[in-house]
Amino acid sequence: MKVGVFDSGVGGLTVLKAIRDRFPSLDLVYLGDTARVPYGGRSKETVQRYSLECAQFLLDKGIELLVVACNTASALALEKLKETLDIPIVGVIEPGVKKALEVTREGRIGVIGTKATIKSGVYQRMLEDAGATVYAKACPMFVPMIEEGLLEGEIPKKIVDHYLRDLRGKVDTLVLGCTHYPLIKHLLQEYMGEDVQVVDSAESTALTLRNLIVDEGYANLELYFTDRSESMDFFVEKLLGREVSYEVVPILCKL
Amino acid sequence: MKVGVFDSGVGGLTVLKAIRDRFPSLDLVYLGDTARVPYGGRSKETVQRYSLECAQFLLDKGIELLVVACNTASALALEKLKETLDIPIVGVIEPGVKKALEVTREGRIGVIGTKATIKSGVYQRMLEDAGATVYAKACPMFVPMIEEGLLEGEIPKKIVDHYLRDLRGKVDTLVLGCTHYPLIKHLLQEYMGEDVQVVDSAESTALTLRNLIVDEGYANLELYFTDRSESMDFFVEKLLGREVSYEVVPILCKL
Repeated sequence: MKVGVFDSGVGGLTVLKAIRDRFPSLDLVYLGDTARVPYGGRSKETVQRYSLECAQFLLDKGIELLVVACNTASALALEKLKETLDIPIVGVIEPGVKKALEVTREGRIGVIGTKATIKSGVYQRMLEDAGATVYAKACPMFVPMIEEGLLEGEIPKKIVDHYLRDLRGKVDTLVLGCTHYPLIKHLLQEYMGEDVQVVDSAESTALTLRNLIVDEGYANLELYFTDRSESMDFFVEKLLGREVSYEVVPILCKL
Repeated sequence: MKVGVFDSGVGGLTVLKAIRDRFPSLDLVYLGDTARVPYGGRSKETVQRYSLECAQFLLDKGIELLVVACNTASALALEKLKETLDIPIVGVIEPGVKKALEVTREGRIGVIGTKATIKSGVYQRMLEDAGATVYAKACPMFVPMIEEGLLEGEIPKKIVDHYLRDLRGKVDTLVLGCTHYPLIKHLLQEYMGEDVQVVDSAESTALTLRNLIVDEGYANLELYFTDRSESMDFFVEKLLGREVSYEVVPILCKL
């Protein structure tokens, strides 16, 4: 079985890694839309259009199951994708919510994500429906910062402090509502304190696939990006290992 | 005469404003590629492709002169645009360099811009050929920060300090090698000190048009963006006034 995974950029590689770790013989195709990253400040219409284009690219590669490894796309385009495509589709929001509800001790849950994800209210609704008290915060600078490879030092720490100051001390669990954020999990955990459960949806999303996978396949991994960027090699190697190669596939547009 | 102006996002509005202030009866068409902003971390091939698409959109609107109001596109795609298009094309780099050389007292000139602009070495070569000592620095977080509307407060100040620390005290002139940066000129001037000449190319680029404009026209202004963003209204109103309206034109892509 061939499974497709797409994200706006390199962040979804965290989900790809979790899937690969759990199902090592699955055939995987990944698309990172690095030519149009970040998605988090764009309109719903544009995120839906970009998501459909990414999905179509993966369908053309023969996938039978699609993982939307981008929270912004999961929040704004999952319904649209399900309406349009004939294969099973898994987003990253529901698995993350489920995990957070499992690990929270007192039901005080913080959610951080892009402007578009937080504004959609999808996380807030799901968590509140389950009885949690939710503190949501958009962190628009995190994705550009991570895509630039800025993972350490004064700037990331200052930006983390700027966004998370309101949540620290208030929540016992913090949901990373963006697949880029696991790449700065060390900073977030340090800032929030060791007693706060920091939840990313990569592992839970991988678990969700268990019931959908028919047979595993031949452990092929195809990796595509829509543009070359300086930090890309760093992330591919960091998450998937040195021997993994990728192909850049240009997007052709018409205005 | 109809003049087209394009930029990756809202930054080029600073150039549009300078042109409109100087030639108030010129017909102007602006395109901000907000669906694919920022350009500064993308590859040369992708910046060239996006620039050609923006130029084609403006050609279809009947422009007779093109202003590339984006330093990244001017650095990586100006030659390509000149090869491909049959109309006169003006970039923002040469006017900025000319202005810097006019105002510098001791020839110690700092240049800041996106990763792609600084890496291209275009500014450095032009300034050094004229005998200046050049200090160049890429500031990749400035464009996402400005496109988010983060123009005041602790985060922008910290980021300014991070990037400009090496230049402060060393240069007598600072060239803003990105049309977004005039939107944080107040922070940059304050940080560098009042005796440093902060040069943006908007005014000089407008001046360059003087010899290329045949007749001014009917003072029409058409404004297009490829996506809606939250901060867009703020920038349009801030730079062009409350009465100015715009249209969102979706990009159609094929992967």
